[in-house]
Order: sequence, then C-alpha cells, then structure tokens
Amino acid sequence: MNISPDLIGYLAAALTTASFLPQAILTIKTKDTDSLSLSMYTLFTLGVLCWLIYGVYLSNKAIIIANAITFILAASILSFKIYNTVFKKN
Amino acid sequence: MNISPDLIGYLAAALTTASFLPQAILTIKTKDTDSLSLSMYTLFTLGVLCWLIYGVYLSNKAIIIANAITFILAASILSFKIYNTVFKKN
Repeated sequence: MNISPDLIGYLAAALTTASFLPQAILTIKTKDTDSLSLSMYTLFTLGVLCWLIYGVYLSNKAIIIANAITFILAASILSFKIYNTVFKKN
Repeated sequence: MNISPDLIGYLAAALTTASFLPQAILTIKTKDTDSLSLSMYTLFTLGVLCWLIYGVYLSNKAIIIANAITFILAASILSFKIYNTVFKKN
C-alpha cells in the first residue's frame, strides 16, 4: 500500500485540530476545569495565535483555517479556566 | 519593527509543544483527569503520531523533534485518562 505523505499531513492536521472540539464541548457542558492546566491553555492559545499570524504571513489557507478553528476552541476552554480560577477558587 | 515570519513559526512551534509540559506535570502530580476529554487526548495523540510519521517521510528534523516531544507528553496524559476511565469509574 502506498500512502502519500501529503495525505498523512492532512490527516495529522485534521486530527490535532478536531481533537479540541470534544474538549471544548466537555468544558462548556460541565464547566469543570479542575484538571486542566492554566499554563497549558495560556501557552497553547498564544502558540496557536502565532501559527495563525504565521499562516497570514505565508498566505497559506490551510494553516490559517486549521489554526483559526483551534484558536476559537482553545480560547473558549481558556476562558472557562480563567473564570474558574479567578471567581471560584479565591 | 521587522519580525521574520520564520521567527513567528519557531515561536508558534515552541509554544504549542511546550504547552503540554505543564499539563503532563499537573496530571502526573494530581492523577486527576476528570475534566480532561478522553476523545480529545485520543484524537490528539493519534494526530501527533501522524505529524511524526509526516516528519519522517519529509526527513524534517524540526517536525520530528517537536512532535516526538509532544507525543510523549500527550501519550502520558492519555494513559492516566484511560487508567482512570477503566479502573476508577466503572
């Protein structure tokens, strides 16, 4: 069987982008963020924003679309984590 | 100020890779995975494995190193989630 490297790349991008959807749904539904790391979502959301800027620089639609979707999902999860950290724990 | 697109790309890769370290540390320390999505970590770990295979296909060291690190971190978090789901909840 001959699998094209591009196909593996698209599959990789689809899986890592789509993976944040079930986490965002779980977080929005349960509002529970106890076992989520604030540092992780802060660094990750900033990183995805950098990927988005990088995609805009390169005018690469695939990078822009994948990271725009991931940014919305990661920023939603981060918002819940910040809200819970600020208003629920102190 | 003139920022090179490559610098933004490296910063993006460093941030999204490094972000999984505080999550892995938190999960290993607390063993709490209640608010982590099993679907997210399953899809994400598979996706990172595809990125790793893609990097090997392209002989691209940056893709290989970043995704090898992320794979170890994501697989560790996934292992705790699977253990808790199988042995703690049923």
